[in-house]
This record gives sequence, C-alpha cells and structure tokens, in this order.
Amino acid sequence: MPGEMDKPLISRHLVDSDGSLTEALSQGPKVGILGSGDFARSLATRLVGSGFGVVVGSRNPKRTAGLFPAAAQVTFQAEAVSSPEVIFVAVFREHYTSLCGLSDQLAGKILVDVSNPTEQQHLQHRQSNAEYLASLFPACTVVKAFNVISAWTLQAGPRDGNRQVPICSDQLEAKRSVSEMVRAMGFTPVDMGSLASAREVEAMPLRLLPGWKVPTLLALGLFICFYAYNFTRDVLQPYVQEGRNKFYKLPVSVVNTTLPCVAYVLLSLVYLPGVLAAALQLHRGTKYQRFPDWLDHWLQHRKQIGLLSFFCASLHALYSFCLPLLRSTRYDVVNLAIKQVLANKSHLWVEEEVWRMEIYLSLGVLALGTLSLLAVTSLPSIANSLNWREFSFFQSTLGFVALVLSTLHTLTYGWTRAFEESRYKFYLPPTFTLTLLVPCVVILAKGLFLLPCFRRRLAKIRRGWEKDGTVKFMLPVDHVLAEKTSHV
Amino acid sequence: MPGEMDKPLISRHLVDSDGSLTEALSQGPKVGILGSGDFARSLATRLVGSGFGVVVGSRNPKRTAGLFPAAAQVTFQAEAVSSPEVIFVAVFREHYTSLCGLSDQLAGKILVDVSNPTEQQHLQHRQSNAEYLASLFPACTVVKAFNVISAWTLQAGPRDGNRQVPICSDQLEAKRSVSEMVRAMGFTPVDMGSLASAREVEAMPLRLLPGWKVPTLLALGLFICFYAYNFTRDVLQPYVQEGRNKFYKLPVSVVNTTLPCVAYVLLSLVYLPGVLAAALQLHRGTKYQRFPDWLDHWLQHRKQIGLLSFFCASLHALYSFCLPLLRSTRYDVVNLAIKQVLANKSHLWVEEEVWRMEIYLSLGVLALGTLSLLAVTSLPSIANSLNWREFSFFQSTLGFVALVLSTLHTLTYGWTRAFEESRYKFYLPPTFTLTLLVPCVVILAKGLFLLPCFRRRLAKIRRGWEKDGTVKFMLPVDHVLAEKTSHV
Amino acid sequence: MPGEMDKPLISRHLVDSDGSLTEALSQGPKVGILGSGDFARSLATRLVGSGFGVVVGSRNPKRTAGLFPAAAQVTFQAEAVSSPEVIFVAVFREHYTSLCGLSDQLAGKILVDVSNPTEQQHLQHRQSNAEYLASLFPACTVVKAFNVISAWTLQAGPRDGNRQVPICSDQLEAKRSVSEMVRAMGFTPVDMGSLASAREVEAMPLRLLPGWKVPTLLALGLFICFYAYNFTRDVLQPYVQEGRNKFYKLPVSVVNTTLPCVAYVLLSLVYLPGVLAAALQLHRGTKYQRFPDWLDHWLQHRKQIGLLSFFCASLHALYSFCLPLLRSTRYDVVNLAIKQVLANKSHLWVEEEVWRMEIYLSLGVLALGTLSLLAVTSLPSIANSLNWREFSFFQSTLGFVALVLSTLHTLTYGWTRAFEESRYKFYLPPTFTLTLLVPCVVILAKGLFLLPCFRRRLAKIRRGWEKDGTVKFMLPVDHVLAEKTSHV
Repeated sequence: MPGEMDKPLISRHLVDSDGSLTEALSQGPKVGILGSGDFARSLATRLVGSGFGVVVGSRNPKRTAGLFPAAAQVTFQAEAVSSPEVIFVAVFREHYTSLCGLSDQLAGKILVDVSNPTEQQHLQHRQSNAEYLASLFPACTVVKAFNVISAWTLQAGPRDGNRQVPICSDQLEAKRSVSEMVRAMGFTPVDMGSLASAREVEAMPLRLLPGWKVPTLLALGLFICFYAYNFTRDVLQPYVQEGRNKFYKLPVSVVNTTLPCVAYVLLSLVYLPGVLAAALQLHRGTKYQRFPDWLDHWLQHRKQIGLLSFFCASLHALYSFCLPLLRSTRYDVVNLAIKQVLANKSHLWVEEEVWRMEIYLSLGVLALGTLSLLAVTSLPSIANSLNWREFSFFQSTLGFVALVLSTLHTLTYGWTRAFEESRYKFYLPPTFTLTLLVPCVVILAKGLFLLPCFRRRLAKIRRGWEKDGTVKFMLPVDHVLAEKTSHV
Repeated sequence: MPGEMDKPLISRHLVDSDGSLTEALSQGPKVGILGSGDFARSLATRLVGSGFGVVVGSRNPKRTAGLFPAAAQVTFQAEAVSSPEVIFVAVFREHYTSLCGLSDQLAGKILVDVSNPTEQQHLQHRQSNAEYLASLFPACTVVKAFNVISAWTLQAGPRDGNRQVPICSDQLEAKRSVSEMVRAMGFTPVDMGSLASAREVEAMPLRLLPGWKVPTLLALGLFICFYAYNFTRDVLQPYVQEGRNKFYKLPVSVVNTTLPCVAYVLLSLVYLPGVLAAALQLHRGTKYQRFPDWLDHWLQHRKQIGLLSFFCASLHALYSFCLPLLRSTRYDVVNLAIKQVLANKSHLWVEEEVWRMEIYLSLGVLALGTLSLLAVTSLPSIANSLNWREFSFFQSTLGFVALVLSTLHTLTYGWTRAFEESRYKFYLPPTFTLTLLVPCVVILAKGLFLLPCFRRRLAKIRRGWEKDGTVKFMLPVDHVLAEKTSHV
Repeated sequence: MPGEMDKPLISRHLVDSDGSLTEALSQGPKVGILGSGDFARSLATRLVGSGFGVVVGSRNPKRTAGLFPAAAQVTFQAEAVSSPEVIFVAVFREHYTSLCGLSDQLAGKILVDVSNPTEQQHLQHRQSNAEYLASLFPACTVVKAFNVISAWTLQAGPRDGNRQVPICSDQLEAKRSVSEMVRAMGFTPVDMGSLASAREVEAMPLRLLPGWKVPTLLALGLFICFYAYNFTRDVLQPYVQEGRNKFYKLPVSVVNTTLPCVAYVLLSLVYLPGVLAAALQLHRGTKYQRFPDWLDHWLQHRKQIGLLSFFCASLHALYSFCLPLLRSTRYDVVNLAIKQVLANKSHLWVEEEVWRMEIYLSLGVLALGTLSLLAVTSLPSIANSLNWREFSFFQSTLGFVALVLSTLHTLTYGWTRAFEESRYKFYLPPTFTLTLLVPCVVILAKGLFLLPCFRRRLAKIRRGWEKDGTVKFMLPVDHVLAEKTSHV
C-alpha cells in the first residue's frame, strides 16, 4: 500500500502557518479542553485543523501555552470553560475530583470524556470513567467519545486507520452535537446507546481479539490431542513393539498427519451449529426464541473457526509439499530401488496405490482451492461488496462443497485401511476414522433437512410462522441472516 | 477479524432501557411505519436507536404493540400516518392495495418503499414494487430505499457489513430527506437516479455474482475442451495405439496439463480486448464513439477473467507440487534406477533436459509471483488506496510482464517439442502450441502500438482529438481510465 | 468482486431522462463550470445527478451546448459566473489568463481549481496551479479539489473506487462549502490544510508508489549482492577449482539460496529501526525530540520492507517446492541408488541429515505461516478493524516470533556447516552465516530492553516523562503509536 497518505499533513500545515489561521478560526464554533497531556495537545491540533475555536483550560496557562498550537487559546480553567458549550475532559480519572471547583461554570454543558482506563483500573472499578464523571457533575451531560482514537491518529488525521468513534450518552441531543463534531473532524460516529455502555466502550481498546480466544484454544486443544494420538500410533508403537526408532518423524511427518485432522474437524464444527440451530427451530416451531447461550456463542464464532480451519489446511499443504524435500523420503526411494535390484525385480508398480494417491491428492487440492475462496470472500472489503445471496452462496453452498470434498479426500486417503487389522496399532483405530464422525453427522443432517417435510416447515418458520402464535416483543433470532456478519 | 463489533449493541441498549429513552426520543423528527413483520420491527428498533420518533400504524394496535420496542408508538394506521412527513411502507406488494383507504391522509407525503420481490415476482411484474406503489398513490412521492439491507443488519447496526443503501426517486427533495435519514441511521446513501431505476434496485439483492457468470462459463468451457484434448493425447492415444493403460493420469496429471492452458489463455483474453479497443479507436479516429456491445462487456469483465486466470494458475502450482508426492512418480524413479543398473550404466545425466526444466520452472514461479501481485492489488481495499497511475502500473504494466513471463514459461516448457514428429499423437499438435496463438497476437499488437506512428495518434485520440470534429453530447468511452474499476 | 456496481448507473439515468429532471433540478443550489473538456462534462453530469443546478460558461455556447447533459444550462462565460457562488475552473493552466476578463464578475466568489499538471509542468512550475489561479484572481477564494478524481469516476460515481477528495484552501468557510458539495456528490472530503498544500495535492496523481521505491531498491540490491555471492560459491568455485559444470544451478538453485537470505535480512531490517529508536529515546530521555531523518524514513517504511520480506519468503517456498520436480534432483536420486548398488550397500540412512532437514523444514513452514498472518493483518480492510493493542500484537509480538523462527530455521539449516573448513569455498563463509548478523543484533537488543532497568525507563519516557522537563510545543514522536499506520 502506498504510504502517500501516511504523513500528518494537516497538523503540519496548521502548525506551520498558525498566524494566518488564527483569525480564520475565530469563525468556527468554540470548544473547551481541560488537560495538557499528549492527548489534549493532539486533540487541540485536530480541532484547530477542523475549523473549531479551541480554548484550553490550564492551572498554569503561562507554562502550558507553549505546548499547544498557537491557534489554540490557553487560559485558566475557569475562564476556558465559561463560553464553550462542549468541553473535552482530557485528564486522568484520578484527577476528576480536582475539577469539582468548576462545577458551577460547567453546569448545563456537555462534558466529553475521552479517557481510557488501564486494564488494572478497568477491573478495579465497576463504574466506568464516564459514569464516574457524570456522578461528580450531575448538572452536566456526559458523553463518552474518542477513547478508541490514539493521540497519533488525532494528529495525523484518520487517513488509513479505523475512523469509527463509538459514542454513548444518556442525552440524545448531546450525542448528536458530539457526533457532528466527530464527523467534522473526519471520523465516523457510531452510536453505542446510553452512558451505561461507557464501560463497554472503555473496554474496547483493551480487547485482544476476543472472538478468536475460544476458537484458537479449540484448535490448539485439537492439535495437542491429535498430535498425542498420532505420536502414539506412528512413533511410540514402532518403538515399543518393534524397537524401530522413528522419532525423526516428530517435526514434519506427525505434524502433517495432525494438521489435516484439526482442519477437517474445525471445518465440520463450522457447519454443526447451523444444523443444531435448524433442529432447534424445527423442534420449537418458532424463530423468535433465543438459542441457548453456548449455541449462540458457537454461531457467532463460525467465521473464526472456519478461518483457523483454512490456516491449518494451508499449513498441511505446505508440510505435504515439504515431504519430497526430506532426506528421509530420498533415502526411502533409494532404498526401495536397492531392494528391487537385489530382489532381481525389474519393474515396480502397484496400480491400486497409484490410483489411491492420485485421487486423494486431487481432491485435497480442490478442497483447499474451495476453502481459499471462502477465506478470500471473508475479507471485510470483499464481504462488504457482496449481497446476502452471494455471501450465503460462498459461505453456505461453497463451504458445504469444501466439507464434502474434504470428506472424500479423507475417505480416499483412508481407502481400505479402516478394515485392515494391521492398521489398528495398540488397538487404536487409524486417525482418519476418528475425524470422520462429526463431518458425517453434519452431512447427513444437511441431507435430512432437504427432505420435503423438514424443508417446508423450516422455510415457514424462517418466514416468521410460529407453532403457537403468541409473539411478544422479540426480535427474530435470524441466524440464517446473521451469518453475513458472524460467519466465515 | 475480531468479532468485537458483531453484537447488536444498539438495539440491546435501546430495548433494555426503553423507559429513559422514550422521553428523550420525543425530541427527534417523527417517522411512520406501516407494517408489523420482522423488517418493520427491526426498522422501528433502528429508527428509535438513531433518535427518531417512531409511530407504527397497525390495523390491530393492541395486538401489535407488544411486538415493537416500547419507545415506538403503536396506533391505528390512519392516526399513525397523520403527522409524520416520511412513512415507511413495510408491507408486501400484494397488500399495497389494502392501504388505499389511507390515500387522503398520505397525500403529499413521502412513502419509502422498502420491499423486495421474490425472484418469481421480479420476473412476473414488469413494473417495480416502488413504481406500482407510486401508481396507487399518485399524490405521494415514492422513494425506494433500504431494500438491500436485511432485518438483521438493521437490528445489529451497519458495523462491518455493506453500508450502502441505494436510493431512487423522481423527486430530488424527497431523495435528499431520505438520504439524510439513511445517514443518521449509520448507512451510506447511494443515489441511483429516478424511480425508473427501482426495478434495478429491487433486482440487486437477487443478483448472484452477475459479473462472474460469463467469465466462469468461459473458464469451464476452456477447461473441458483442453481436458478432452489432453485426455485424447495423453491417455487415449497410448491406450489405443500402444495398448498401455495410463488412465491413472486422469485425476492429477491430465488436470495439471489442462490448468496452465486455461490460465494462460484466460490471461491473454484479459489483454486482447484492450488491444481491440485501441485498434478500433485508431481506425475510427475518436474516443467518443461507443464500442460494440460485445467488446464493451468484454472490457468490463477483464478483472474477473484475470482473477480466474490467477486461480487456475495457483491450482496448477498446487497440482505441480503434488507431482513428486505421487506414487507413480516414485515408481518411475525407482524403475529408472533399476533400468540404469540393469543396463550397467553408472551415471545418468541429460544436460538439455536439466536446463529446460530449471528454466521453465523458474519462469513459472516468477509468472505466478507477478500474477499474485495483480490479484492482491485488485482487492477492493488496496485498489482504493492506489491512484490511477499506480493502478495502471500494476494492471497494465505488471500484467503484461506476467503475460510475457507465462509465454516464456510455455515456450521453454515446449522447448523443441513442437518440431518433433513423435509429439504429434493422432496427428494432434502438442497442447502448448495451441495456447500460444492468442497471447502471441496480443504481444505482437502491443508491440505494434508502440511504434511512433500508432503511439502518437492513439495518444492524441485519448486526449480528446477527433478525426472529424463533430462532437455531440457523448461522454468519453475512456476505457483506459475505465480500467481502474473494470480491470483485474 | 461482483461487478454489479460497476456500471455508470447515475449518469445513464440522468442522461436518459433529462426532460423530467431539468425542472426538479432548479431546486438545488446553483454552481458554475468554466470549461468544456471531458472533465467539465463529467463534472456537469455528476453535479446534475447530485441535485445541483449547473450553469456552464462557454465562449461559444451554441457549439458547446450539445456537449453537456440537457439539464445543464450552457451560456456565455460572463453570464454563467454571475449568479453561482461556487465556480469550477475546468480549464488548463495555460488558459487561466484567458479568464482574466471575468475578474470583476468573479470577485468574492469561490473558484474550485480541479486541474492536474503533467509531470513536466509539475517539475517546471514552482507554483501550484491553484496558487497561480489565486494570484490571477486575488479577489476570489481558491479551493483545490477533485484533481485526484478521474473524469470516468465522476461519470460512473464513486462506487468502488477511492472516494477521498483532498481539499485545501486558505479560507475555512470556502473549504467547508466545497466539502459539503464533495459529500453531496458521494465523495469523502479530506482536509489538506491551506492552499500552500496545493502543490502536494497536485502531485498526488503523479505519484507512483513513493513508499515502495527505497524498500524495493533495497530488496533488489540485497538480491544482487547475495546472488553474486552464491554464484561465486556454488557455481564459480566448482568450475574453477574442480572443473565441474554447475551452471544449470543458475535459474533455480542459486535463486533459491538467495531469496531466503533477502527475506531474512529484510525481516530483521523491519525490527532494527524500532530498536534504534528505543535506544535513542533511552539516551535522550524524552520522546518529544524528532528522530534523525534517515531513522524517521526507515520507521515509515517498515510496512513495505516487511511485505517485501514476505514476498521473497513466499517465492522461496515456491522455489523450494519446485526442487523435487527438477530433472537434476531426479538424476541425483537415481545416481545415488546406482552408486549404492555398485558399492554393494543395501541400506542408506544418515540419521543426522534426516533430523537436520526435518527440523529446518518444519521451522521454515512455521515461519512462513506466521509471516502470512502479518501480511494478512496489514491489508487495509483488516488493519482498520483492529484496535491498537491487537495491531501491535500482530506486528510486534507475532512479527518478532517470525524473526525468531526464521533465525532458528537458518541455524538448523546451517547446523555445523559454519565450523567445517570445506564449506569455506574461496575462503568465503557460507551465506547463511552472513545473514545472521543483523537479526541476532535485533534479538539481543530486544532482549536487553526487557531488562528491568531499561524497560522501566522506556515505559516512563513513553508515558511522557522527560529527563529535563523543558517541553515546548512539540507533538510527541510517538512511533510506538505511529506503528499502526506506518508498520507492516
């Protein structure tokens, strides 16, 4: 991506040409800022750049004045808050009480709380910073905003970064004024409801991929289980029962039999909750009843599970392509040739093995290709350009095709091995047989729902029909529609 | 992508804290809603959440009231439509006539048609729902909007999804009012012109990747033809003429000789229409004359054709990397070793074969790498960050480099095989010779246009010069510029 | 991406149904256009479509009228500029003086300069087109806007393309009016400050990936150096000292030993400047002092360097997967088998070689997988959906993991070779030992900064603490925060 827009052009121009702008800026509406840290300064720079008149309130204006752009007026706190209607409070929560002396001047005004708690503070206080500020200044309207924006983004302008500024307040008119300011500053306001959401809004910058936690742990858990299982079958059993050292298989070979299992099971877990939800809707005869929480969460995480499945499948492909590079593979081929020569056999060919390998590799490539289409269409910029029908074509139809291709890939890989006793090492069945369980359930259930009796009833329910028509105010739990945002 | 924004925060807050909001909401402008289905309810929830006063008109307000958020006022239809200026009509087309009794109260108001026809209805009625509504209420202004948004997105808010709401109406002022509402609700209005476009707007959610249909069929057609050709040469001929069973080649080997042909021909078809358009402009001596429809469509689908070419090329790479994994390859190597030993030859080395393979593989990797840059820069979020010069650098210059690299890859793969009689099985020339035709024409034509005489004239035409200067109102058919949106 | 939005719907509707619109349009605010080229016409079409009344000023209205949509009024220049407040100047710089006769009528109005200089003109004139226009019409307010938008995008509407319209002017009120128009036309205004930025704005469409120039040259330089080095060691030395022809290695093998070196060194160069910046901040004891220019530029280009590193690593993977496909590999295996048979050895196995290869391949795959996550999260649409903590998790934490994995990949690839005399061909150390230098410095320094004494001081500095507390108006050089926009 070209970096052409990266430099903080606005601030520079404004800082460079203060003189000429100072006059012009007196035209814009006036806003106040309390505080003199990095954020307050960047805020002042940005507000000045967006055409607002800025008055900064400081306890020591002389010392502070040099810290702010020349176009901003720096004065004593009491004076600064007297004329503007909107005042940004850019001080730490622990200093909120120091502003209490201003409560008379602030009465009736809009206070914008821009603060962010540290993780520790967030856990310690049940009350959000904004609600605490509101409790200190009951005569003011508190609006939470701008906390997700960094001082640097304020300076540089919202060129490439995320422009969304979540806003919440109990007073609609105040929310609307601040939204207008947000827009004027080049950001996009997002209404988050009443001030009760402030805690949630303050938690946003503290979040670390919340939607990925459970899916990633799930994938890791599956990896560890399957790795242990494959280790037992492929390395431990030969060592214990035949005394053969196959520990060299640990870094590549065992990983590469584990990865497809994880990818395959994860893919089936993307489609299992949809099947369960449909079954539940069929059973209940309505779509207006909430799903149990675990199912709801599962449905919300399908996208992440699907992308992890694709990641594992891609690693599986990379590991597979590494196999012929391995020294062990080379030695195997050479040793096979030597064995054939010593046994005086002139031609080696096992038709069944050839066919098995050709078919399952071809199916594997096709499954990966299909999955990659799913992954690409789940990129935000592409997903947003699809209508619902197109999105569901990719995620439902094509995703199901990928599941069927993976199942065929697994079955042809297994071939007749599930029925050969020699494959049951330590009495453990081959790994691929274990992985087939969930996918086959999903495929069978999907098939069942295509039967006319179920399909018709399901369609009726999803159009809003109910077994017993006593609807109260319940928004539809329309996860078929919800898939657009929550799915791969 | 983190799921943090996925939950329908707004609706929840609004639903939870109805009491406190109800008062506040009386401040916002009032809008009416006719209808009580899922969409009407989600619409009400969203409008309430965006600060509008909502009056729902129902034929049975008592029964319906429980279905809507408490902040929305539910009353009889006639009462509901009396005061608001804008009324959402959220009922099915077949019930439009049931509203005719309200036509006096509705006179002079703005009716927003949010309906979507089913595919069947869309084919059946020549008149769009919105135009039909307009014909029923000639005294009202009908605006088509919101039909592309699902009930769920309305509830959850337009966080990640597509925010664009196409709007059309014959009355500009009405369009502007509704656009303002769309914006206030967090969506992005897109002006689609007069109400005559309503049919088009109503078709949007019914569309299934319209731009991909022809290119995909083209790719499939090419695949089938080349597959049949390769099957005849690589499998049928040995079976018929030499009695050798090579059917095991069907799943991987034949597919892998077919895919590069498809990818290569598709890539050349991306650049052929540009060459034809330039030739046509040279011949006509103007850029203000429309291209024939087939050429226009072809030019519009270059992006899709190019991405399909990249997809086939990637699959070709995956299949190629699978080749050494195949059992048949292993057997071939072993058998070769045995043969050498039995023939008492101690060293095997064919310098020419070694060079041929090294060169064509290296060129293949480079061609794929170049193509992947093209594919990445055609992602919407990246394409949007490029200026026209950068975009054309990637798509024209780098794309042409990819075509040249592919041609060299094909030529070095072919080496001298086109001139060996033994390669003409069933008198059919080697497949690669067939694929070279179109690309070579494109490369030659591109070279021709670089000659001063042609280049200068073309540049003049594209600056607006015309052979005979009788321009009428014709917007430029500026496909060199148009490439930014329509090209790979 | 579906092409559904690609067609210029708006313009078509407006052009088709001129009659009915003409009346309606008289409602919208009036704007003037001077000029009758492609851009003026597309501008008129778009303005008409967005509900503005358009008056086009021409020196020959009769001849020109047919060129514009019917809804636009075409008249003499003097008449056209009399009533509108905003006038678009869509003529070439060289014809600006021809408008001087209108200076009385234009006095006090807003002139929008939409022109783009050619590269030659841009280099020739120190004064931007907009400033030149302002100097010719001192009584007018000049606003620079729309120059980055092509005539075609104006016609077709800003559906998929970049919607950003950089705007600059010395007069805030004028900037605000034009911003409103930009928004009404469906684009997104971006404030670029005073008219002094016009030169910069005019340079935008001339830019060709400015952020990629140095990184690409760096990557190319590294490639050439390492290629020459590897050529000397792997091809020249055997030829000169042993008379063995290994020139066949040039296209694949030497490239494939060069690519990982380039990728690895580039990746370490992504993390080196951060280490240097931290060291400098520690040394200076403040974050409010500008970094030297070279370091600043380096920090700004980390994203590009990182993506080039990923590109090289991906090519390295592709080339590696090609190795088993090579004829030379096949001959090597066959010849090895022959040698074994002739030497009467029945089993070939070198445990150490097997382990070395298994481990370094596995590490390589994991490093590439980690890098691919970094690359994906640097896509604009994904980067924008991450908060700062998540972004830094991917780019700092995961990026560092990738660097460590690559280092381990390199070390296990090298194994004991650095200590074997036979590896020092022409007294040149093995290539991998050279590449280890920078990465090891980075890893060590990162380790050092984790020591409590350094970590605490650094944390203090980044919170705003200063060794000597004499802060003047200096915005923070907060590159830890700046990483969000400037980093991989």
